[in-house]
Amino acid sequence: MQKSIVIYRVCRFTQAREDSRFFISQEENAMKFYMPARLYEESDVVAKHAKEITALGKKALIVTGAHSAKKTGAQADLTEILSDAGMDYEIFDQVEENPSTRTIMQACRSADVADCDFVVGIGGGSPLDAAKAIALMLAHPNWKEEKLYQNGQDNSHLPLVCIPTTCGTGSELTGVSVLTRREQGLKGSIPYVLFPDLALVDGKYLAKAPKRLIANTATDALAHLIEAYANTGADDYTRMLVDRGLEVWAESKNFLLGLEEADDARYSRLMLASSLAGMSIAQAGTTVPHGLSYNLTLEAQIPHGIAVGYFQAGYLRECPAQMRDHLLEKAGFASPGDLDAFFRQICQVPQVSQEVLAHCLTAVMNTPAKREICPFDANEQVLRRIAGLK
Amino acid sequence: MQKSIVIYRVCRFTQAREDSRFFISQEENAMKFYMPARLYEESDVVAKHAKEITALGKKALIVTGAHSAKKTGAQADLTEILSDAGMDYEIFDQVEENPSTRTIMQACRSADVADCDFVVGIGGGSPLDAAKAIALMLAHPNWKEEKLYQNGQDNSHLPLVCIPTTCGTGSELTGVSVLTRREQGLKGSIPYVLFPDLALVDGKYLAKAPKRLIANTATDALAHLIEAYANTGADDYTRMLVDRGLEVWAESKNFLLGLEEADDARYSRLMLASSLAGMSIAQAGTTVPHGLSYNLTLEAQIPHGIAVGYFQAGYLRECPAQMRDHLLEKAGFASPGDLDAFFRQICQVPQVSQEVLAHCLTAVMNTPAKREICPFDANEQVLRRIAGLK
Ligand SMILES: [Fe+2]
Ligand SMILES: [Fe+2]
Repeated sequence: MQKSIVIYRVCRFTQAREDSRFFISQEENAMKFYMPARLYEESDVVAKHAKEITALGKKALIVTGAHSAKKTGAQADLTEILSDAGMDYEIFDQVEENPSTRTIMQACRSADVADCDFVVGIGGGSPLDAAKAIALMLAHPNWKEEKLYQNGQDNSHLPLVCIPTTCGTGSELTGVSVLTRREQGLKGSIPYVLFPDLALVDGKYLAKAPKRLIANTATDALAHLIEAYANTGADDYTRMLVDRGLEVWAESKNFLLGLEEADDARYSRLMLASSLAGMSIAQAGTTVPHGLSYNLTLEAQIPHGIAVGYFQAGYLRECPAQMRDHLLEKAGFASPGDLDAFFRQICQVPQVSQEVLAHCLTAVMNTPAKREICPFDANEQVLRRIAGLK
Repeated sequence: MQKSIVIYRVCRFTQAREDSRFFISQEENAMKFYMPARLYEESDVVAKHAKEITALGKKALIVTGAHSAKKTGAQADLTEILSDAGMDYEIFDQVEENPSTRTIMQACRSADVADCDFVVGIGGGSPLDAAKAIALMLAHPNWKEEKLYQNGQDNSHLPLVCIPTTCGTGSELTGVSVLTRREQGLKGSIPYVLFPDLALVDGKYLAKAPKRLIANTATDALAHLIEAYANTGADDYTRMLVDRGLEVWAESKNFLLGLEEADDARYSRLMLASSLAGMSIAQAGTTVPHGLSYNLTLEAQIPHGIAVGYFQAGYLRECPAQMRDHLLEKAGFASPGDLDAFFRQICQVPQVSQEVLAHCLTAVMNTPAKREICPFDANEQVLRRIAGLK
């Protein structure tokens, strides 16, 4: 593992794609909205929208990780409606945590995928982000691996369905795919805008998720809401999504603290908070805490939700008081410290060495795009405080 | 004019398009979101997004009414960026109020449009709805006029830009096109889902609009917010949009009453309320007041905003108390009567004969889809009260 990890492409992404929603500072009064995925969010969502799924092609490539798509029952729900429609499918279930560009190419090179004409991602952020990149690469059979991280030109991709099984990624409602170049120790958004055609959200898949995974991913959703709002790209549309998202998120605090049992309604509210958070970052993008987090995940193997949660209190402390107070009030926290205590109660937060944190800082120093959208001057001194560097 | 006016297609629309967002009763806890237009909302929006507009094709067909596109400066803004890009365009400025299917065909048959490969609608609801239908028909050169009101199958259309010059239609953010069959005296949504590719919203176009037009169209926006919420198709996404929409709408009440002068910020807030209202009806559709209004417009020549405003107080009185109180509180009205008094103060509301209102009732009785999504039993007796029939 390299000492210093650069979040690749984020800067060039901004320059390359003037039409992108991400990482562009907001001009005064400039507003925008773009989230073209068709979202359905209800119980038994896959069965209920079988016709729309099967209308996307003749043969599906199902992209998943090793376990969660099977354990949650989501994969069985999908293969059942495909079989009922007499449709063929292939399964690529080799997506690892923090999927690598190599994995994407491996999936695309498999002989079995040659006649797949649409892609269904099932799982947390890793399989969904991988499914996006695979749908892109299968639409461009001549592209080599480098195209995944070189300036994107053509966002066209095979028809794509995303089915989340966690309540945090939001990937099903964004155009972002975060991939890792393992040898280089680089992790970041690839320079393409890849919205799913269909986003199918079903709270029932959370019922079989480990409690810890729900806590981690709910923390990711909270981070998305905070970073989308405390962001110079935020406008009235973003703020509307975040305000409602925080209200819905806060409804599940007692459950996350272990003070309440979950039922179907609870799972569906956790999913709704995650969806609203995903729609928020689709408008404004994430900012410094996500930028800092990537190295924490790659170098210290800290799950994404915990890695982004780690920097939230520090980030809020640097934000303008009115903005901070608004966010804390909506989420029902008295102070950044209160939020941090909640986070440490619901997630197992490991000790992180100053050395690792220093690498997180270097990574963000090298990605001006994440710093420029902060609603404060994100200079090195400020970033050191957010990173918790002495 | 026929005695009884049927809102054509609305019923069959529901049966025909299972994937449509409109007029479908909400199952318990079923949520959905779909609004694929790319929206930019800022001053000088056309100039700022010239590249995205000109990327849509080689020759534009500009669809407008006789005056407003010119008077507001929107048409000049557009032709300037087209000329700067060395692009050719045609102008069809024959769209009348409540555009007819005949007008659509007339536009499509003109020799000049043969090589137009994208469409830009500029104006209020009439030119925008016409632009949608023209973009549809130009993509299907063999279709006859009847296809416009026969069950839709294929929603594909030429790339489409919508630029509103009023603060009410919301058409730029919905898939709906409302057309009239003049000879039959029929007005209603055509059975296609036609979202623009680009929705470009600029408050400055309101600066040159007559005050009366702003009042009428702001009333239309209020009606969209109320009908999208007081609607069995409303879900958490709809309610989020409506809640924020009503808050933003209410900011302009003093201006609408003539108690405050308008400035650029006011115009942009009026536009934002209209956009949020449009996004709301894109999710849930309109209900009985819009259903009642079409005949009022066709038979008594009452502008659309006034015609839908006419039935809002009566509609709210029939809604469940909690729903009604929530909507009134968000909009800052003490009661349905208070809302009605405001409406009559800002709009010139004519006397309407009982005979005309009876025809409005007949029209809605013949369109079960509008009645079935009411959050109450919309039987004939209830509808008579809403219509104000003795
Ligand atoms: Fe995240
Ligand atoms: Fe309307």
